[in-house]
Amino acid sequence: MAEIEDKLAELKTRLAEINDLGMAASLLSWDQLTYMPQGGAEARGRQMATLSKIAQEKFIDPIIGKLLDDLAPYAESLPYDSDDASLVRVTRIDYENATKLPPEFVAEMYTHLAASYQVWTEARPANDFAKVQPYLEKTLELSRKYSEYYPGYEHIADPLIDMSDYGMKASSIRKLFAELRDQLVPIVKAITSQDLADDSFLHLHFPENQQMAFAESVIRQLGYDFNRGRIDKTHHPFMTKFSLGDVRITTRVKEDYLGETLFSNIHEAGHALYEQGIDMALEASPLGGGTSSGVHESQSRTWENLVGRSEEFWEFFYPRLQTEFPAQLGGVTLERFHRGINKVERSLIRTDADEVTYNLHVMLRFDLELAMLEGKLAIRDLPEAWNSRFQQDFGITPPDNRDGVLQDVHWFGGFIGGAFQGYTLGNILSAQFFDAAQRAHPAIRNEMRQGQFGSLHGWLKDNVYRHGRKFTAPEVVERATGAPMSITPYIQYLKTKYGKLYSL
Amino acid sequence: MAEIEDKLAELKTRLAEINDLGMAASLLSWDQLTYMPQGGAEARGRQMATLSKIAQEKFIDPIIGKLLDDLAPYAESLPYDSDDASLVRVTRIDYENATKLPPEFVAEMYTHLAASYQVWTEARPANDFAKVQPYLEKTLELSRKYSEYYPGYEHIADPLIDMSDYGMKASSIRKLFAELRDQLVPIVKAITSQDLADDSFLHLHFPENQQMAFAESVIRQLGYDFNRGRIDKTHHPFMTKFSLGDVRITTRVKEDYLGETLFSNIHEAGHALYEQGIDMALEASPLGGGTSSGVHESQSRTWENLVGRSEEFWEFFYPRLQTEFPAQLGGVTLERFHRGINKVERSLIRTDADEVTYNLHVMLRFDLELAMLEGKLAIRDLPEAWNSRFQQDFGITPPDNRDGVLQDVHWFGGFIGGAFQGYTLGNILSAQFFDAAQRAHPAIRNEMRQGQFGSLHGWLKDNVYRHGRKFTAPEVVERATGAPMSITPYIQYLKTKYGKLYSL
Repeated sequence: MAEIEDKLAELKTRLAEINDLGMAASLLSWDQLTYMPQGGAEARGRQMATLSKIAQEKFIDPIIGKLLDDLAPYAESLPYDSDDASLVRVTRIDYENATKLPPEFVAEMYTHLAASYQVWTEARPANDFAKVQPYLEKTLELSRKYSEYYPGYEHIADPLIDMSDYGMKASSIRKLFAELRDQLVPIVKAITSQDLADDSFLHLHFPENQQMAFAESVIRQLGYDFNRGRIDKTHHPFMTKFSLGDVRITTRVKEDYLGETLFSNIHEAGHALYEQGIDMALEASPLGGGTSSGVHESQSRTWENLVGRSEEFWEFFYPRLQTEFPAQLGGVTLERFHRGINKVERSLIRTDADEVTYNLHVMLRFDLELAMLEGKLAIRDLPEAWNSRFQQDFGITPPDNRDGVLQDVHWFGGFIGGAFQGYTLGNILSAQFFDAAQRAHPAIRNEMRQGQFGSLHGWLKDNVYRHGRKFTAPEVVERATGAPMSITPYIQYLKTKYGKLYSL
Repeated sequence: MAEIEDKLAELKTRLAEINDLGMAASLLSWDQLTYMPQGGAEARGRQMATLSKIAQEKFIDPIIGKLLDDLAPYAESLPYDSDDASLVRVTRIDYENATKLPPEFVAEMYTHLAASYQVWTEARPANDFAKVQPYLEKTLELSRKYSEYYPGYEHIADPLIDMSDYGMKASSIRKLFAELRDQLVPIVKAITSQDLADDSFLHLHFPENQQMAFAESVIRQLGYDFNRGRIDKTHHPFMTKFSLGDVRITTRVKEDYLGETLFSNIHEAGHALYEQGIDMALEASPLGGGTSSGVHESQSRTWENLVGRSEEFWEFFYPRLQTEFPAQLGGVTLERFHRGINKVERSLIRTDADEVTYNLHVMLRFDLELAMLEGKLAIRDLPEAWNSRFQQDFGITPPDNRDGVLQDVHWFGGFIGGAFQGYTLGNILSAQFFDAAQRAHPAIRNEMRQGQFGSLHGWLKDNVYRHGRKFTAPEVVERATGAPMSITPYIQYLKTKYGKLYSL
């Protein structure tokens, strides 16, 4: 037994060291995007690569595999949900994933994707798909090759999906998405046949310091802990962490649009509440992070949309917002404001899309990814496939590739496959978790009217956050909601909310 | 030859990796002191230790020793001052130093010093020397033990001095300091027998943002490159770097004292000008840093004192400062201002001391360090030795240990030996370098009257900065000034400047 304890301690020490390298690399990246002077750029790229490389080398060390082997019987003797059993189980999966990939493939992929990203940054403004086409062809080839290192898959996209949404399969996602699409398309049609909501009052002048102060006060009230985090400004907002005690978010401000800082802060704070809520016992281990891209996104969307765009939330906050901006909002009723921040429209760009149409953007990409991986869609035919599907789902055709197939960075800086499904899985799960939380605490919506979010936050912490990566996404969903992933609560949520706003 | 090139390339790759780990650790530390929320503290300490440990392990790897052995004949075939010859020569010294120290000793030392520092932070405010005495005794024991790992030294302090001022010896420093003390004590006596300079106008209210803006404009004009640096606020100001393209300084503001931000910024910018001036070809190698604590300090002191407290400098900047603060300085003449910022007085605290008395503080500490290491002074007798020497040099006795022997962090967070001499070596060298620069560019003082610092900065860059660690401090001094280290220019500088201010 003493030997087992020593081995477990050694495994934890090694994993903490690897974790520390990764966290340091994250700080290098955060600094690059917030405060680094331009002269630091060249060395910074090399420094981040060095730290990632050393972390990778230390992780694929056969000693880790041997420790995992030796600890397997002990781990299996423990309850499935104990920290130690989960550590050995999850680390084993990570280890198998990491060691199956030859270092030469990893190097080839990084080199190619860096070049591809560079070409895309020029091709997109130039609306030049031909320029990226050969890079995209190579990316597709490498994406397929990646999957080949994990034989035994059901669908060639599955190993790619595993990277961000472990435990989900192309088949299960396809089924969920097909059901969702059947329900969504009529809702979108019904809404967009009506008059557009007026949100002109969001596009007045709102001074930066006031926007920042208001958004900060909101996320503080939602439960974001500033003793274990902070906000800085970046070009694109994001959440990052350097330990469970240091979970930061970034934001940007548009003085001519009130919706930017506010909803972006709530979105990133949602991600941060997840990370801040992880059990401190999991610190510096592979378990000390969010479990999947879908579950992570479910939390940013819960706080941004289900809470931050709800009527109840604004019953409390709108008088405060009006006091902050009397000239701009003094004459706008709560009802008009609530309708304005929930404006639904057919638009070209995913990242600008509203809560209802957003999923159509995601599903389009997911289906095209599968078709490319299956060999049914060649890269040269991608723009046409994009535009025809867009016409089908949205009733409009993108005027150019810049705001069509070239709009997202994902395929140009990463694999084709597994890149997008997490966004919509997040939307689906946000409603499913919220629903379960409401069953446990029926007063949640009434508490929101008082600016109180403790019951919701507490339920999410107990049932989702604290577990970190101990359970896969399907396991967390089952444990937290008592059912497998389902679109029913999400469709119900959309129908109730938008039925009221648009009398569907 | 191809084999030599491969080995040189491999050495450089390994050293760059080690450098990257060190730079990342520096960023972790900078972030801890600038922006990190308190919740990040525990993990941050562990992360910095992890990175330092891995860097150390990679550096003492016998492969480095083998590469250095194999490259030695090649390096010796090159000119002494070539980059590659210098790299092999300097890395060999670093490698010998690092590998002679057993890892267990390093671990014991870090653990002890962390505890000692912690006890000191409580003992100093409590004026409790007895509390630190056992820790200091252990530190002295470890300091002596450190030197024993480098047998063949002339004086037991020499290996400790080597850590910060490689190439200097206790004997040579003792000789320099004795000469300096003989000259300084009468000057201090002569000045302090006269009326104190009036600097009451520095202690009015100066708003933070104005102080920051003025100090920033000054260091920009001195040559600090903001494309390769930035300023942030910390409790104690410092200079740090993450690459030769990213050399940052920090500052603090006292709204009731104009001298704080301004002179601290110039001081730290002096350190930064040195680092920003290093040849980019030395980036990410052991040569890409300042060569010694003394030479580094010479640059902060050159810019802070020889430039920043000179009459010529203020001929240009004082009208600008008066325009910024008309209410506070409108009625103060340039002469009075210049006298005020060069006020000399006998004071208890080294870090608050003026340019003239500062060295007496340093020499006192240096002599006590040597006596302790030689076994001639026991820790229990240190407070008394401190106070009696202070009475001898300053004519006053510290009222308590808090502002006496307990005032500096150095002995409580580091070794006894080698900790202080760099400050006075820096003062001595600042004048010696400045003198040589003036011989090459006799217009330097006149240029300063025009707010132009290019000739001075250019000379220092060519003769000191660009070389990084290629040459030891004695080598740099000899090459740059044509003579060995000497107190003559410094004494001449003090006599000229203070002779005028105090009619000595």
